[in-house]
This record gives sequence, structure tokens and C-alpha cells, in this order.
Amino acid sequence: MFQALADAVGAEHVIAGDDPSVADLCADEALGVPAGKPAYVVWPADREEVVAVVNAARAAGISVTARGAGTGLSGAATPDDGAVLLSFARMDRILEIDPVDAVAVVQPGVALDVLDAAAGEHGLTYPVHPGEQSASLGGTVATNAGGMRAVRYGVTRAHVLGLEAVLADGTVVRTGGRLAKISSGYDLTQLLIGSEGTLALVTEVIVRLHPHLPARRTVLAPFTGGADAVTAAVGRIVGAGLAPSVCEYLDGPTMRAVCAAADLTLGLPEDLVDADHLLVELAGRRVERVDEDAEELADTLSALGAAEVFDLPAGSARRLVEAREKAFWAVKAAGADEIVDLVVPRSAMAAFLGRARAVGDAHGSRVLGCGHAGDGNVHLAVFQPDPEQLAATLHGVFAAGIALGGAVSGEHGVGRAKAHHLAELGDPGALDVLRRVRAALDPEGTLNPGCSVR
Amino acid sequence: MFQALADAVGAEHVIAGDDPSVADLCADEALGVPAGKPAYVVWPADREEVVAVVNAARAAGISVTARGAGTGLSGAATPDDGAVLLSFARMDRILEIDPVDAVAVVQPGVALDVLDAAAGEHGLTYPVHPGEQSASLGGTVATNAGGMRAVRYGVTRAHVLGLEAVLADGTVVRTGGRLAKISSGYDLTQLLIGSEGTLALVTEVIVRLHPHLPARRTVLAPFTGGADAVTAAVGRIVGAGLAPSVCEYLDGPTMRAVCAAADLTLGLPEDLVDADHLLVELAGRRVERVDEDAEELADTLSALGAAEVFDLPAGSARRLVEAREKAFWAVKAAGADEIVDLVVPRSAMAAFLGRARAVGDAHGSRVLGCGHAGDGNVHLAVFQPDPEQLAATLHGVFAAGIALGGAVSGEHGVGRAKAHHLAELGDPGALDVLRRVRAALDPEGTLNPGCSVR
Repeated sequence: MFQALADAVGAEHVIAGDDPSVADLCADEALGVPAGKPAYVVWPADREEVVAVVNAARAAGISVTARGAGTGLSGAATPDDGAVLLSFARMDRILEIDPVDAVAVVQPGVALDVLDAAAGEHGLTYPVHPGEQSASLGGTVATNAGGMRAVRYGVTRAHVLGLEAVLADGTVVRTGGRLAKISSGYDLTQLLIGSEGTLALVTEVIVRLHPHLPARRTVLAPFTGGADAVTAAVGRIVGAGLAPSVCEYLDGPTMRAVCAAADLTLGLPEDLVDADHLLVELAGRRVERVDEDAEELADTLSALGAAEVFDLPAGSARRLVEAREKAFWAVKAAGADEIVDLVVPRSAMAAFLGRARAVGDAHGSRVLGCGHAGDGNVHLAVFQPDPEQLAATLHGVFAAGIALGGAVSGEHGVGRAKAHHLAELGDPGALDVLRRVRAALDPEGTLNPGCSVR
Repeated sequence: MFQALADAVGAEHVIAGDDPSVADLCADEALGVPAGKPAYVVWPADREEVVAVVNAARAAGISVTARGAGTGLSGAATPDDGAVLLSFARMDRILEIDPVDAVAVVQPGVALDVLDAAAGEHGLTYPVHPGEQSASLGGTVATNAGGMRAVRYGVTRAHVLGLEAVLADGTVVRTGGRLAKISSGYDLTQLLIGSEGTLALVTEVIVRLHPHLPARRTVLAPFTGGADAVTAAVGRIVGAGLAPSVCEYLDGPTMRAVCAAADLTLGLPEDLVDADHLLVELAGRRVERVDEDAEELADTLSALGAAEVFDLPAGSARRLVEAREKAFWAVKAAGADEIVDLVVPRSAMAAFLGRARAVGDAHGSRVLGCGHAGDGNVHLAVFQPDPEQLAATLHGVFAAGIALGGAVSGEHGVGRAKAHHLAELGDPGALDVLRRVRAALDPEGTLNPGCSVR
């Protein structure tokens, strides 16, 4: 097998999976998914080499797991034991930025911050900010990544216009194009987005870029009357058409952890730090309009029960938004044993938080919450060192979310961490369809078999 | 078979396909697709009756074509000969409008204008305006309908959050939910959108609603220097972040036809009527901002070569936008033999128009053009009574669009009209995948076999 892979990508780009130098590549950032033991790690340089790797692996009856930057939180890039781990690290070129059509064509290994900076040179932005800007484009397509700005711009799915991808049988497919819209057969672009390397390996991505919005205002509103008031405020803000670019919920302990991890002092009165916080950023083309909207926002928040409305100075605002983006690292540093990425209807966020905390209490688990409130996407940090109690807590939390009309993942994906939750809690008919689709595209189970829909 | 269908939906809701009373239901509005000869037409009342019809048809080896309002332009709702034509006309209830989550839950037979009016009572709007507001929600999901407002809001795909649907084997599946985002397995919602009744029959739709924007300004800019200048202006308008709610191109003859059909006199100087026209509407929450943006827009258009920039009074603006929405009827009344719905990169619109007209000239066909310029979605009217010359013109036009990076349909769908163009011009690898997906979901070919991916 080594020789077949060396023929595919060059011997200098194949390393045995048990080589200590590749140990860091054998897992992503998912807390509950142990590192895999791949047989080999390979670094193809282009589409043809990806095809050759897939063909070699399939011929040998070995599976392939794709890896971008390894920043995923569900274990989708964690290889199955014995698999070929295919890193896209060498396929990291921005092929084109077209400011007229406002699109970029990139290889899957390009990092989000690299693309965003390159777009910025044309007055444009790629607004998918999933919290880790070193994430790769390919990885974010695989997970349909979201993040704080999805409340305004939508998730990855809303930005990908076309793909080039390699199927399990080595066929190269091209979907979509530099096209703002398309209705020409089933949308294969959309089918591949979020499929976590199980239907095809993406080798090129065409994304939509957006005009950069230079004006910005950020307010922080602590609520002392419970998360219900936060949920109601979010509905009003979105419903008024204020189109926030960030609309985040943080409970008191998460706010403490986030600020501590970022060494950030906001100067809140101590009795308000433990409140339920709503962090809202407005962005626009013109300063005076954003200022006017910020006043409307502050009035709305006050009328709906905010204990205070703090107009954050630009520097503090930027640091707090960045710190919130890094909340995963903050709660990880604080010892969280698992994180949850459930999504519920926007209006059900407070109810879900309440039920999740009750589940935690029943199992002696500590449950902290924050989330993309404008999207109903709740991130919980669960502290419970006992594996059985942790599993019971998670099961109860997932069941509570589904009972409220939710889904197991809003933006992190299913990966290996949530495959059994999805299988247990998803719609049986829909899951059966997805399994049939998977079998139709990858009948031999070559692509990331331990991941996603099983 | 009659009895089986009568058992499914009640005898009073089954009519033989050759009954004169159902003749109008045997085709949609596609110009080049002849009416089908269904064996029966049925009107189920609910999901269970849809399941029963599908099961009865499959058991008898008869196919099923779904029909919404019959306003489609690709023949997707035209039944195959001998099929059961399943009308969703009785499943026309709005089940819920939830202003807090800004979602609506509707049956597939609900008309767009009915939903939009109901949303309006809550200060909300459903912004999919494909040009025919009597279109049904189910039909617009089936075709992934777009329309003039897609340049701001996106096409149907961007608004559908969840579906209930009946598969070919009678299974009921539920996808998505009242969820702003989701990443929980392959996105079955997105796979079913645009599948034109070939993968499943949609029995319930959850859509996202948007805040109504009360302020509006509309300008009309004739360009006498060719369509290139229009294309350049569109790029600048979108790139500046003006976020137009309408951004339409009309060539001179189409403008004449549209105004004549609507009995609309704009008072343009005669020498400007035959220019290339750009019609741009801005919408927003506040009048003064929209006015300010309209000035910026007018300055941009003048600087980029518009011969004049007319600020349309509200009444004329509304009538012209409505008349443009009805352009299909105008060119049909003028004797058009076929219409084309190609999409190309936004910057390639003028090049495509030029090539399409050259193809027309080569075959003695008259080719008029208009389109959703902000999306690169070009609608051509082709006048050519000779079938062979018409087919040659269409073939050349489709090939020209594909060569520019386009796709055979931007928003009308493939249906029966474009199935052979897609099969000939689509990416072979991608088409093979879509055929495998279709076979996996409908192995017996029960659902609309003559339509879409074949």
C-alpha cells in the first residue's frame, strides 16, 4: 500500500500513520472522540493526486478520511483505524478572486482568514466566521460551518456556488459555477455541503463574497430576569429588520470564562456579570445609520427588560467578540468534558437552556450555555468527569432539544461524536433516504465510513 | 385502478384523464411541451391520501406527476401519458404563521400571494416573487423558483427550512424544522428543493419570512452604448452594497412589449425606448435612507454611461415592475415560440446576449432578451415558427451559455422542456451521481419519470 500511495502523491508525501510526527493529525478538536490510528497520512498536491489516492485506497479496501485544518468539533476529520488520512494542507491556493462577480475560487486547504484577507484587498469579505479562522474552506464546506455572523449572512451553505469534487470511484464531478442561482437538476453542490467527507472529497470551491461593511457598533445587554427575556429580545431585534451581524447569548459563567481566557475586563458591575448576556453587533455601510440603529436597538433592549445596555468602545467590542468566538477554548481550558451544538427554533432557546440545565442537575453535571441566539443555535459546555453520567447527560440534553423541534447539530456537524445521536433521534424515514444516498455514491464504504449518517 | 384511487381519495376526487373537464390540467405554461394524457387526475386532501395515491399507483406500475398551480414554465407538471396526475389544489391551507420565529408552515397548494398577504398581517413578507404570484408553494419548492427579488433575498432554496414529503415507496419523511440553520447529516431539504416531483411529493413546507420593508424607490436607466455597460453597472451596484430589491435588464423590444401588454406609458423619449434598460428598485426600513441610496444609485448609473436616469413615481414604478414580472405573458402574446431561462456569471450577461442574438441571426430567429441582471439570469424570447430552426437556435443558445460558465436553467427548472439539454450539456460525472440518487430514492421510476434528470 505504501508504494501505491507513493505512486499517487510521491514518496515524500506519504508517512506511516504510527509515525510520531503525524500524531497531531490523528484527531480534530472534538472533546469526546479519541484519536484514530490511520495506516498512512498522505498530502496530495492537486485533484489528480486526490483521485489517485482514492483509487489506490479503494483498490486496497482501505477507507479514506479527509482532513482540512483539523479545527472541527465533531470528529469528522478523525480517521478510522487503518484508514488513509488525506490532508489538504498542500492544496492551499487561492486560485482567483473576481471582484466583478464577487466570487473567489479556492483550493480546500485555504484558511478562512487567508481568504478573508485576500478578499479585503478588493473591499470584499468572506463572512463565514465559525470561531476558528484557521479553519480550512474544505473543512467548513464539509461541516456546513456557521458561526457568529451567520445570523446576518447565513451559513457556509449560503455562500458556496460551486464545487469540484472526487467521488469514491475516482470520478471528478463539477457542480454549480460562478452562478448566483441555478435550477438545473438536483443541487449536487448542496448535497455535498455538510456531508463531512463521506460522499466526495472537495478539491475546489467557488464562494460568494460580500461587500465589506466598515461601520460597526456593539452593545452588551445583561438581563437579570432570566433567559426568557433574552429570547424575546432576540425575536424583536430580528423581526424589526435590524439585521445584526452578531447576536450572541452568554450565560454568566460563560461570560466569566470567556473574559478570563481573553484577559478582558469589561468593567461590568459585579452583580451583572452573572446575568444572562446578549451581545449584539450592528454593521453597515454608513456610520450615521449604524449609530441610529444602535439607538433603536438600545431602546428595544431597555424596553424588553435589559438591566443595562452598555455601548462598548470599539476596542472592547472587538476583543469581546473575538473572545466569544474562542469560547470553546475558554470552556475547554476550564475543564469542560463535552460541548453540545444543538439548534432549536429561535424562540425555544430559553426553554432548551432550562431543560438542559435540569438534565444536568439530575445527573450531577454542570451545564453552561452560550450560543448564536439569533439562530437558536445553543452551545453548551458540560462538566462531568464520570463517563456514564456524561453520556446520560448528553442523551437527555439531545432528547430535550429534539423534543423542542431541534436538531443534533446547528453548525459543528455530526462527525463521529454525534453519529449515534443522529441515528437514534433523527427522522427514521429521512435517515433511511440519506443512507440510500450514501450507498448510491459510495457503495464500498470508502469515504470516511465511521462518520455522519450510518 | 379507478377503484384503488377512489379508495385513496374518495370517488368524487378522481376523474378520468380524458374527461374534458380536466383538459386544462394536463400541461403547465411551458411553450414547447405538449399536454400529456394522464390516465387519472386525483385531488388528495392530506398527507395520508397522498401516500395512498402513491402506493396505489406504484402497485399498478403507473407513474405519478404532481401538480401545483400549473404556472411552471418547463413542463415539470405536465403528466406523462398514462400517469396519475396528482393535484395539490385541495391541500391549500396555511397551517401557521409564527411571527416570533418568523416562519410559516403551509400546505403545498397555498398560492404565493395568499401566503404573502397572510404574512403581511404580521408585518412580514414571503419575498419569493417568480413573476406569477398564483404559483403554489409546492410548485416553487419543486422548481426552486427565483424571480425579481432573488437578487436581494435569494431563491426559494434560501427560504425553505423544512419539509414533509412522501417518497415513491410511500414513506413519509420530515426534514429540517423551524431552524435557522442545521448541520445534522446530508441536507435532505436541499436535495428535495428543485427536484420537480421526481424524488418525493412535498406535503408540507416550513418557510422563513422576512420583515416587510416599507420604503421604496425605483429608477429606470436606459443605456445606448450596448448591454456591456449595463453589465458593468450591475456589478458596481451590487458591489457597492446597495442591495437592490429589483435589478432587471430589458432590451428595447422587450420594454416595448412589456409596456404594450400592460398598457403602460412611461413617457420615455422615443429614441430611448429602444435602448438597453436597467430597472433598479431599492427598498428599506426608512424613507430617508432609501432616498439617499437612490441618489447614490443615480450618480453611479450616470457615471457608468446611462443616457438618462429616470426616478419613477411610485405608481409607475409599481406598474412597470409588475409588467416586467409578466414579461412572459407579454412575449407569449407577441408570438414567442420558446423562452429560455439560462443563467451565466453576472459579468457575462452582455456577452451571452450578444452570442445568443448571433445564434438567432444564423438561424433566422428573432431573439429578445430581458433578465434578472443582478443574478446573471437571462430570459430570452425566441421567435421562430419553423421547428427545426427553432431547435437549432435553442441548441446554439444553450451551448453558448454553457460555454460562458452558465447552466441550462436559473429558476424555471429542467422539467420536460430542458431534460435533453441538461443531459447533453451538464457535467457527465455530476449527472451520473444525480441519476444514482434518483434510482436510490425511486427505483421503480414512479415519480414523474419523464422529468428532470434522466
